[in-house]
Amino acid sequence: MRFDVLTLFPEMIESHLQYSILKRAVETGIIDVNTVNPRDFTLDKHKKVDDTPYGGGAGMVLMPQPYVDAYESVERQENSITIMLSPQGEPLKENLVKELANYDQIVMLCGHYEGFDERIREIIKPREISIGDFVLTGGELPALCLIDAVSRKIEGTLGKIESANDDSFADGLLEYPQYTKPRNFRGLEVPEVLLNGNHKDINEFRQEQSLKRTKERRPDLLY
Amino acid sequence: MRFDVLTLFPEMIESHLQYSILKRAVETGIIDVNTVNPRDFTLDKHKKVDDTPYGGGAGMVLMPQPYVDAYESVERQENSITIMLSPQGEPLKENLVKELANYDQIVMLCGHYEGFDERIREIIKPREISIGDFVLTGGELPALCLIDAVSRKIEGTLGKIESANDDSFADGLLEYPQYTKPRNFRGLEVPEVLLNGNHKDINEFRQEQSLKRTKERRPDLLY
Repeated sequence: MRFDVLTLFPEMIESHLQYSILKRAVETGIIDVNTVNPRDFTLDKHKKVDDTPYGGGAGMVLMPQPYVDAYESVERQENSITIMLSPQGEPLKENLVKELANYDQIVMLCGHYEGFDERIREIIKPREISIGDFVLTGGELPALCLIDAVSRKIEGTLGKIESANDDSFADGLLEYPQYTKPRNFRGLEVPEVLLNGNHKDINEFRQEQSLKRTKERRPDLLY
Repeated sequence: MRFDVLTLFPEMIESHLQYSILKRAVETGIIDVNTVNPRDFTLDKHKKVDDTPYGGGAGMVLMPQPYVDAYESVERQENSITIMLSPQGEPLKENLVKELANYDQIVMLCGHYEGFDERIREIIKPREISIGDFVLTGGELPALCLIDAVSRKIEGTLGKIESANDDSFADGLLEYPQYTKPRNFRGLEVPEVLLNGNHKDINEFRQEQSLKRTKERRPDLLY
């Protein structure tokens, strides 16, 4: 899977790939992440990428020319999708993550500051995706979330592919409580049922707990 | 505002603070971000922080002792809240971000791999927050999203505090389309109303557009 990230802060993307599971996925060639900086595509000597909004208002707006030219410089593979990270997009959910994992290339547009000139949307026609109903300084953290979530779905990224199947949302419910050593920690015991080795009982307990937790915390996921 | 982040990958947090608006917020003392590594609190010589789950299953579970001891080492301020980043938590929304910006200290627990031993929740009793219904490798990216979103609400972080007031969700709606130079880009013109300097017309246009976009894309925000 190839990720191409258009960003004014390529180091934010690159530095995060030095760690943990994404580092291994890059090293083993499972994913390949490239960055393109629209600032390198400006035509004026000050390398200006933003300007004040027409109609007034605070903040700066990203100019269309550097972004569209940077986008057009990206070599496109056949099975490719372009995504704009924006709070105005479709909310990212586990099903969408799975869908995205089927592409061979994901091109991502990260905004920064006030937002994109609308004509960037009109020309590139990206699929707009939001990681949540809150506002961030830029699209870089959302892009990293998307790279992380999608990479986990690609075989070989996790140590064992099974370890993704128990996660929250894998079956539409929140995950059941997990316990590890020691059996007694500060007087709190691991539930007896998890120690008796009866897999039918263990599965039943976990399903009950998963459903109970989802009902209590996120009833919206059930209906 | 002080952020204390419990994480097995402190570099993921620290490296991100080298950039953009968060860098400036750290340098000017508006925010102060500290990391605590539970691995430094293990009692065995292999510095083991996770083990297999009781009851079986793939993946590893974070052991209670290193996390609880690391948590108890954090000096607490008076007006402080503890947050566990987890897909099982309450979804982060702009209103919750504003609420969190009123604290003087936010202590965050980042998981990694399979998840937390349930007794960590029982002892620490954190407020659990999720950035979205998707699964990531760890809580570090969600913690960074939270630091970014909350910091934007603190006066002095943004160049002008007003530039946060036009954002998506600031008034419960998605943001209206923005335009900057040039007036004509590849044949696409900036809407005439934004050029005529009539602020009443401009405000009306923007409100209409904001409402139209929200209706089309996120009708759930309206009802």
